[in-house]
Amino acid sequence: MSSANAIVLLSGGLDSATVLAIARDRGHACHALSFDYGQRHRAELDAARQVATALGALAHRVMRIDLAQFGGSALTDPTLAVPTQGIEPGIPVTYVPARNTVMLSLALALAEVLGACDIFIGVNAVDYSGYPDCRPAYIEAFAAMANLATKAAVEGARMRIHAPLIDLTKSQIIRTGVALGVDFSLTVSCYQADSSGRACGLCDACRLRRAGFADAGIDDPTRYA
Amino acid sequence: MSSANAIVLLSGGLDSATVLAIARDRGHACHALSFDYGQRHRAELDAARQVATALGALAHRVMRIDLAQFGGSALTDPTLAVPTQGIEPGIPVTYVPARNTVMLSLALALAEVLGACDIFIGVNAVDYSGYPDCRPAYIEAFAAMANLATKAAVEGARMRIHAPLIDLTKSQIIRTGVALGVDFSLTVSCYQADSSGRACGLCDACRLRRAGFADAGIDDPTRYA
Repeated sequence: MSSANAIVLLSGGLDSATVLAIARDRGHACHALSFDYGQRHRAELDAARQVATALGALAHRVMRIDLAQFGGSALTDPTLAVPTQGIEPGIPVTYVPARNTVMLSLALALAEVLGACDIFIGVNAVDYSGYPDCRPAYIEAFAAMANLATKAAVEGARMRIHAPLIDLTKSQIIRTGVALGVDFSLTVSCYQADSSGRACGLCDACRLRRAGFADAGIDDPTRYA
Repeated sequence: MSSANAIVLLSGGLDSATVLAIARDRGHACHALSFDYGQRHRAELDAARQVATALGALAHRVMRIDLAQFGGSALTDPTLAVPTQGIEPGIPVTYVPARNTVMLSLALALAEVLGACDIFIGVNAVDYSGYPDCRPAYIEAFAAMANLATKAAVEGARMRIHAPLIDLTKSQIIRTGVALGVDFSLTVSCYQADSSGRACGLCDACRLRRAGFADAGIDDPTRYA
């Protein structure tokens, strides 16, 4: 068990809540970091705050990044429709350009300031294989870059990027979270949740989440609109 | 000559102005990107705007990133003093944690939205060897990561990170800029310039810049306070 500081990227969704529980279970003092990157809904950030508190994060920071001014994603660009017709092949239009790279870079900055060497991210290569920045090779390349980028690395520390969900199915993630005491009713996964965090039940994220609870044999606590 | 879009990180200083001139000279349609990352002075951003216009950038975006909320650098933290006693060994306190990684990541996001494969950054390993994220190995590692991170890369495009100043001395950079028509009187390098962009003449950045003009045998157009 280590009590070293760790940065945990926390979106307010099911996956990152589980990651926070895993980091805490490994004994880290967890600094949760969320981004307000121009999401079309804000319920996710409200969920992140509740999850951080419920899982005993030492701190929770929300950083605003105006990726919406770049455009290019259905999650930030109101002129693009969120798909509700099932999972399409290829890279989804809900892909936010370079999002994981931007979030990990800012986590790296915070890690350096706090003297932390551990960054946790809830990427998953199974359910979201259409996203290039959710693959193991990407995470390894980011870690290699991080170890050349920072003052800490130059001084002999080793930065570690942990992606503990990367090879898990949604049902395995849910079982892991439940075992670690995550209250999934606090989390919001829906791409178009309403202002009180109720899920649409129709978008890709809702479909994957609902199927995950069914596969896990666990009652789905999601609040649907 | 290519007319392909390129993203050029533009700080308003001498180096990045020269990089913009180089990217333009290579025939790129240049999208300048500046960051308001909580600098203690704002003259640098005013300078960036003037430089972008003077050098014919197609667009100039300024993105706010609140790195100051993390603390840890004399450039963003008012409780740390900017050194004026000459260059010290090791990593300067003016180092902003993971700054180049954060800026390149956001440039990568914009590149992806614009369909650009070229990103230009004015890092320099000669004068600023104390900064880990100014070394060639770091730039190569970032490019390797970028080529795994993006939709464009998955679809077969190749992202290129250009650091054309990386092996140049300050006087070589100045000569290059002058040859390409850069008006260095518009640029601000000083770590603590006043609100109208006048330089202190004392900080590390001022010392390096002044010595560069002297070495190049070119009149220093810097406005000193």
